[in-house]
Order: sequence, then C-alpha cells, then structure tokens
Amino acid sequence: MIHPLHTLFHPKSIAVIGASEVPGKAAERRTRSLIQGGYEGQIYLINPKRDRLFDRKAYPSVLDIGNAIDLAMIVIAPKFIPQAVADSVKMGAKGIVIITAGLGETGEDGKKIEAEVLKIADEGGAKIIGPNCSGLFSGSARMNLLGIPPIKKGPLAIIAQSGNIIDSLTHYAEMRGMGLSAIISVGNAIGVKFHEYIEYLSQDDDTKVIMMYMEGINEGSQLVQVARRVSTKKPIIILKVGRSKAGMRAAASHTGSLAADDAIVNAAFKQAGIIRVSNVDEMFDVATCFANLPLPKGKNVAILSEGGGDNSVAADNAEVQGLEVPVLPS
Amino acid sequence: MIHPLHTLFHPKSIAVIGASEVPGKAAERRTRSLIQGGYEGQIYLINPKRDRLFDRKAYPSVLDIGNAIDLAMIVIAPKFIPQAVADSVKMGAKGIVIITAGLGETGEDGKKIEAEVLKIADEGGAKIIGPNCSGLFSGSARMNLLGIPPIKKGPLAIIAQSGNIIDSLTHYAEMRGMGLSAIISVGNAIGVKFHEYIEYLSQDDDTKVIMMYMEGINEGSQLVQVARRVSTKKPIIILKVGRSKAGMRAAASHTGSLAADDAIVNAAFKQAGIIRVSNVDEMFDVATCFANLPLPKGKNVAILSEGGGDNSVAADNAEVQGLEVPVLPS
Repeated sequence: MIHPLHTLFHPKSIAVIGASEVPGKAAERRTRSLIQGGYEGQIYLINPKRDRLFDRKAYPSVLDIGNAIDLAMIVIAPKFIPQAVADSVKMGAKGIVIITAGLGETGEDGKKIEAEVLKIADEGGAKIIGPNCSGLFSGSARMNLLGIPPIKKGPLAIIAQSGNIIDSLTHYAEMRGMGLSAIISVGNAIGVKFHEYIEYLSQDDDTKVIMMYMEGINEGSQLVQVARRVSTKKPIIILKVGRSKAGMRAAASHTGSLAADDAIVNAAFKQAGIIRVSNVDEMFDVATCFANLPLPKGKNVAILSEGGGDNSVAADNAEVQGLEVPVLPS
Repeated sequence: MIHPLHTLFHPKSIAVIGASEVPGKAAERRTRSLIQGGYEGQIYLINPKRDRLFDRKAYPSVLDIGNAIDLAMIVIAPKFIPQAVADSVKMGAKGIVIITAGLGETGEDGKKIEAEVLKIADEGGAKIIGPNCSGLFSGSARMNLLGIPPIKKGPLAIIAQSGNIIDSLTHYAEMRGMGLSAIISVGNAIGVKFHEYIEYLSQDDDTKVIMMYMEGINEGSQLVQVARRVSTKKPIIILKVGRSKAGMRAAASHTGSLAADDAIVNAAFKQAGIIRVSNVDEMFDVATCFANLPLPKGKNVAILSEGGGDNSVAADNAEVQGLEVPVLPS
C-alpha cells in the first residue's frame, strides 16, 4: 500500500503558483531551485501576468495546464490562496505546499483563511504543508522547493519548524559530505502534523535517520505513540526549544508555539526513545554517527588516537557521558 | 624587575643540542621550525657527527660555540643529557628545553637521570622545561621549538601536558585566524611547574588569555593561590581530565599523572576563578571569546540572528546556562 504522503515526495508533476523571475524573491528562488535541481517530472509555472518564465511557457491559472498535477507549490498573497487551492484540488493535486507567510501566525484574519484552505483541501483529498513554511525537498525525486543550493541525496531526513535551522543543517551536510533523503519545513502545520511526517519517513527506504526541530508540540500523545514505534527502527533526534522562559518567549514570537512543561517533554521523549539535543551542531553530529556507524551492542567503547592527550580527554568524556572504557587485555 | 622565566621566551641565542637534518625526526622538525620561523637571535646547531647542517656551521659541542647561550634545546639520548645540561649551564644557559622522552615516565633509571639533571640546572641557575615535552613557542621572539608549521603571534597562551592537544589548539588557531603569545609543552615538568608558567604569563603583556591542559596536579595549593590572583586580570581556562576512572587510567599511562578527587578539583578551580572546560573545542571557543570581546558587565544578553529558529535555540541555551535574556522594551 502506498503511503498517503508518498505523492508529496514523488510527484509526477508540480505546478508553481506564483512563479517568478524577480531575483531574490521567495518565489524566484524556489522556482529556480526546482528547475535547476534535476527534477525529472513535469513543471508548470503559473503567473497570470507572464507568458513565459525561465524560458518556459507560463500559464495564467492551474486550470489552464490541461493536465492533472500531483503537487502544487503556492507563493501568492494570502487572499488569493483559497482559490488557488481549490483549483489545484480540481486538477488532481495530492499535496499543496503553501510558502506564503502572514496567515495564522499573525492573527484572526489569517486563521480564517487557513481554516477555509484546510476545508477545501480535506474535501478534495489533498494534504497541506505550511503555510509560512520554507518548502520541501525530496532526494530521490531530486525535488528542491526550498530555494537553496543543490542538495545531495543521502540518508538524513529533516522535519523543521524553522527555515534557518534547515539552512544550517543543509550547510553542515554540504561541509561534511552528507546527503539528505527529505527535508520538510512544517511552517504553521495546519495540515500534515509532525507525527504524520515521522510515520511517512519510517517506511521510506531512503531515510535512515530523522532529525527534527520543534518549537511547540500540539499533538503530543500522537507524537509519542508514533515515535515509540519508529525509534526502534530509525533514530529520531529532536532539537526542541522551551527549556527556558527566554526560549519559550522566542518560540512564541516566531511560530506562535506554546511550549509545554519541559520536564514532561523530557519524560515523554525518553519514553518514546527520542534523542534530545540542545543545538544544531550536536544534532548533526549525532545524526551523522547514526547514519555512518553500526548501532553499538552495548556501552563499552575503545578509543584510538594518535596522542596521549586526546586519549585522556576522550576517555574522560566517554565515561562522564555514561559509556564504559574497559581496560583491554594486554 | 625581569621575571625569572623571561629569558626562556626571549633568548638572544639558542643552541640545538642534537640538531638533525634527517627528515621527520623530532630533532629535524624542531631545528627546521626554529630556523624557518623567523627567529632573529643567534642559532647554534650542535651535532658531533656533522660539520654543517641546514647550510650552517655545526658544532661538536655547546662548549665549542665560543659565545654564551641563553637557551638550549636538547634532543639526544637520555644517557647524554646530564653532560649536555652541564655544558649548557657552563655556557650561560638560563633555560633548557629537554624534548627527549623515555625518562621519569618509564621508570627508576629515567627518574635518576631527571634528578641529576635538575640538580645541575638548579646549581647553575637554569630552568628546566620537560623532559618528554614537545617544546616551546614564543610569539614575540618568533621562536618555534615545537616542530610544527608557522604560528601567528596573538593574544592566546597555551600550557599543556600533551603534544597533540597543542597540535589541535594550534590547528584551530590557524583555521580561526587567531594568534598565540606563548606555547609551553610541560612534559614531565621536573623543573618549571604549571603555576610558575601562569605567574610568568600573568605579567606578559602579549598574553590576554591562558589555556591549560592538565592530566595531574602536583602542586595544587600553589596553583590555586597563583590562579586566584591572576584570574582577576586574565582568564584562565583549564581542560583537566580525571573526571572519570577511564580518564584517570588514560592519564596515568600517558604522563604518569595521578588524578585528584574530581569534586575537590572542581571546588578548588571555582575558588581560584578558573574556568573548567570538557574538551578542546570548548576551550578554544571560550578563549576566543575572551580574547575578542569585552568582559560582560552582567548576565543579561541580547540575541541577534537572521532567523527565528536560531533565536529560539540561542535564547533557550543562554538561559539554561545561567544567562538572562530580558524582554526588550518595544
């Protein structure tokens, strides 16, 4: 059985609603990263004011394409979004990525549009990613809707509630020669939720390790349930802010997230087998280890280095962190 | 008044006893790094088997130079060291850096040689660095006795009981564009002790921050006394292993150090104003901050970043680490 989110990561065709050639614009960067990223399906650029964009035909509306679409990426002003979603659903879209910001995170007007959009999508059987998100990347489909430089395919997946955390992680990946299977910028997450992405990635053969950046948890019990099942097969590493009042305030002003009591978060994560980290560097280090090394059978480690000082420091830190450095038979 | 260790870091002349041209040898690397490092004083190469080395005259013994020397670096077999030290003292050496390993750290025979050497040096008014050390670097004298690539002059000083910790720190310094005022590889430290180096660096105008790597503490009360006085003027950052049994074992086999009870070490360091770190990366980060930034007046910090996620993570970590991230007036 094909997973309900499968089409989002393996679409045969993509419509970019609000495609642009104006350098530096969110729409331009994403149109360009999609075209230049090596995606082999059909790309349809939608912009009622242009006949051609990026040396391709541009369509006034998604209804004018004349073919069904699998995925739509929407980068237009909030008031035009409900119609664009309705049109996309009509043309068969199974996934709709809404990049546009200024919706639910800014107030009641935005929340109304979100509710309307979600209703249209639900009725049409389409999944909503975003709004207020950075986009989507699929390694196997070579689909880069993030507007960032080319990303290598590999074993790491990212689910993140922040565009610049994604930027940091993809930058580390490039520096360290690691590749990515999927990147999901969840944004306001009115449609697909964290645990649904985890569920999807758990059965995705390209993904070996799941990294997540969270500011708030809305579906806590589902997250713990899914993670508990998945973490026995694939490591789930989460950077979750809200350990301090300052972190909670920053998260609230960023994505409107309300942080839960942190002791409860820690206990729940532990129960679910989730590895919690405190910064992006640590997250990438842990993920890289899981991706490149076999799972250890126990706590015993041996240390090999070219110097006595490095050995001493490594042994000391290993044991402080709960590992054992046994005396080797001489 | 000139500090008793001043001449070690600003010698007018240096004799390399055991100078060599054999590529890769400890003596060759150090002879070369001294010659190529830009040192402007007199260099005398001593090797009874050679007339010339590195296109310079080579002398059979330090006694044949015909001039006084300020500093001697000794890289010859243990049994020849006492005579070389006696000759160096006779020629006026105020400092003697003994690179040779296989002395006190290997057993009683080595300990006897160390005692003999120390007696000769003490009677002659010379300071011993090492043995079993990597050498010495002085930024202002452009003196590189470490056998490593050129090092830029700058505000950081290193005192270390491990050659490869020095290698790591100088590598970071180069990557980050930071410079060093002094590097001291203490080795078995039969002569000059940790606290004497700190004392010297405290009055050295080139040094702004002192980094130390320690495996064992032999003169604990002097260290705390000196550090308490110095740390009010210059930050002292120490990476000290021995927080775990594994770390203690590794240190014991590396430099024969006996680690003290770690709770006592922590309390003593805190009293002395010493900043304790757990790895080389952290040590370099902390040192770089102290070298480049003014001392904060309090615990309040503001965070500036280009993204909401980075802000949330930074605010969260700041407060968890005991800083305050106040709400700014809007």
